[in-house]
Amino acid sequence: MVYISRIEHFNAAHKLFNPNWSEEKNNEVFGPCANANWHGHNFELIVTVKGNPDPDTGFVMDLKLLSTLVKELVIEKVDHKNLNLDVPFMIGKMASCENLVVEFWNILAPAIKEAAPLATLHSLKLYETPRNFVEYLG
Amino acid sequence: MVYISRIEHFNAAHKLFNPNWSEEKNNEVFGPCANANWHGHNFELIVTVKGNPDPDTGFVMDLKLLSTLVKELVIEKVDHKNLNLDVPFMIGKMASCENLVVEFWNILAPAIKEAAPLATLHSLKLYETPRNFVEYLG
Amino acid sequence: MVYISRIEHFNAAHKLFNPNWSEEKNNEVFGPCANANWHGHNFELIVTVKGNPDPDTGFVMDLKLLSTLVKELVIEKVDHKNLNLDVPFMIGKMASCENLVVEFWNILAPAIKEAAPLATLHSLKLYETPRNFVEYLG
Amino acid sequence: MVYISRIEHFNAAHKLFNPNWSEEKNNEVFGPCANANWHGHNFELIVTVKGNPDPDTGFVMDLKLLSTLVKELVIEKVDHKNLNLDVPFMIGKMASCENLVVEFWNILAPAIKEAAPLATLHSLKLYETPRNFVEYLG
Amino acid sequence: MVYISRIEHFNAAHKLFNPNWSEEKNNEVFGPCANANWHGHNFELIVTVKGNPDPDTGFVMDLKLLSTLVKELVIEKVDHKNLNLDVPFMIGKMASCENLVVEFWNILAPAIKEAAPLATLHSLKLYETPRNFVEYLG
Amino acid sequence: MVYISRIEHFNAAHKLFNPNWSEEKNNEVFGPCANANWHGHNFELIVTVKGNPDPDTGFVMDLKLLSTLVKELVIEKVDHKNLNLDVPFMIGKMASCENLVVEFWNILAPAIKEAAPLATLHSLKLYETPRNFVEYLG
Repeated sequence: MVYISRIEHFNAAHKLFNPNWSEEKNNEVFGPCANANWHGHNFELIVTVKGNPDPDTGFVMDLKLLSTLVKELVIEKVDHKNLNLDVPFMIGKMASCENLVVEFWNILAPAIKEAAPLATLHSLKLYETPRNFVEYLG
Repeated sequence: MVYISRIEHFNAAHKLFNPNWSEEKNNEVFGPCANANWHGHNFELIVTVKGNPDPDTGFVMDLKLLSTLVKELVIEKVDHKNLNLDVPFMIGKMASCENLVVEFWNILAPAIKEAAPLATLHSLKLYETPRNFVEYLG
Repeated sequence: MVYISRIEHFNAAHKLFNPNWSEEKNNEVFGPCANANWHGHNFELIVTVKGNPDPDTGFVMDLKLLSTLVKELVIEKVDHKNLNLDVPFMIGKMASCENLVVEFWNILAPAIKEAAPLATLHSLKLYETPRNFVEYLG
Repeated sequence: MVYISRIEHFNAAHKLFNPNWSEEKNNEVFGPCANANWHGHNFELIVTVKGNPDPDTGFVMDLKLLSTLVKELVIEKVDHKNLNLDVPFMIGKMASCENLVVEFWNILAPAIKEAAPLATLHSLKLYETPRNFVEYLG
Repeated sequence: MVYISRIEHFNAAHKLFNPNWSEEKNNEVFGPCANANWHGHNFELIVTVKGNPDPDTGFVMDLKLLSTLVKELVIEKVDHKNLNLDVPFMIGKMASCENLVVEFWNILAPAIKEAAPLATLHSLKLYETPRNFVEYLG
Repeated sequence: MVYISRIEHFNAAHKLFNPNWSEEKNNEVFGPCANANWHGHNFELIVTVKGNPDPDTGFVMDLKLLSTLVKELVIEKVDHKNLNLDVPFMIGKMASCENLVVEFWNILAPAIKEAAPLATLHSLKLYETPRNFVEYLG
């Protein structure tokens, strides 16, 4: 079993705001992340897939194919977008990295399995800033 | 003459949109950067000051003082903000890195001269993404 | 279960020196790391906490709270300090990264559990240089 | 149990080419990576070893010794080399990162065990580019 | 005057070998860089252009246009190539970074001037490894 | 004229302390950098040399030779050392980066000129932390 990883990136705006709470409570809990007019980040997404290398190619899965899947199914949906307003699968959810990475998993895990039946999504790691990141293993 | 540099960072939303142009022309020129609902970045700002080291301290200028000035005069104005809506000195200007860095210069050059009379602002370098950056030398 | 991480940093002096050994044996085993007058590093500490995101916030744990805990309980004790002389919990121990990271764990694991009862410390990773690092999972 | 890691690097040429396939099929599967005249990379290898710190040294294993082993047994074999032509343990195998990292494991796992009997190789991570990497845990 | 920069990358094989010299002299001068079967690198190219921002766009030059020019005129010629064998403008020249960056300048300076008449190529910086790089200012 | 650069690194302890001042004034001016028991850093030194490439080698100066000179004349004097106590050329001077880089220049400029008569030292850049650095151009 070998693990292979591909890093993709996107830029997006968001805010952390719970519509069931008062503005005061949002500001208290989320601080400047609740700014009504949004803020944003350069996000880095590390996608890790595991499996046994194919003897004909030496590949667990073609990284170009993995990159294409991630770009078409995730990056195009979030890049240069507002994560609260423009992204169908985030509507009605807090736009936190934790929630983003779970939604990305739900999209990518079956798509990778279908495109490369011998490979399995192992981990998604999402950097919101160089100092803050989350990881999800399914 | 020695050059000293301090790196600070901020996160912000913006869009590139010329109000004198049609939506079509904005989309044609700015592409996804014109997204009506904004996008955002982690910005890195490198502030470089030049001068002769003070024999008593070995410093061109105290980097803690430089950091404090940059945070109070620039970072607090733009961090977790919308550069088009929330930043007084950007109102009415295109929210490009080129324009940002010139405005930052106009704020920082006199403030540094006043706080450290023997030091002079030499350069501002602003990274919008790890692959795109601008620099201004006054 | 989602894993969230926060990176903090500190600068410190230390030496590797076993007081039960001769100076010759210390120099033989530790080489320049045994220099009597100390040397030092910029350390990077990656703190990873795991748990289920809170539906109200989207957070496993507020990263600002995690950052505050790490700074107050660990960083302030070691930043701009001598790890052999100035840090109470390292007195009498070899000032290796392996020992540091275990001591940090003993401080942070209960404090994180108390501050965020639904979250659990998962890993501490400590970079001594960009090419040398250690990790502890408890 | 603490995990310690050392990063080493090498530069090498390679191509991805299956001699049992036509040139057309190689180009179709491997794209520019099949270029007949080779291409190359700066590779980064992260070697992680686990064990209990020795109370006399504070070390799981001396990182200088680990670095020396990795350089002598792996880096010298591949640095400034052609991975398809110059590296005995890769002859007859696809020069993919997946295959490289398995071969490195087969060399390093017993050598580390012999040099530091209380330590065990835990992971090898190999970056081919800053955005593509593989990991092997044995 | 503002300076804007775009970073692009490519992977290539090369060797340093002077055909007018004996193999012994080549090995003596170039060491492992003269390996007959080639070695390779991940190269990073930083392209810096200067000019006055256009008031309508806030841009010295559209960075997407700059990126497209650099990819079409330089990156496609060298990426996944052998710099000694596959690159017409390097034939008969030593495949050093110094020579590469001068050839890139000769291609890019007039193309940038033609595509963006108010902008001027200011600098090309080429990283061969994270620790070795060259810069050319024309 | 092409500029070539080589990055070397060293780890050292130091403190900022003016012996002509009271302890109170030292603490007021230098804060935690005045800690009596020292602190330390991983320093990165970028050495830039300029000249015309030699047609026989394609080199402004052999980067291996430059690396050897910098290691022998500078790095070995400061690596794993106390900059205030162990480094002859810093005795009696404030151990600031500004002073370090000027002393490094005085050592390296003539040595590079002697080793490579057609090359000239252009710049020394010294990173004390990833966010603080100085540069000297002679």
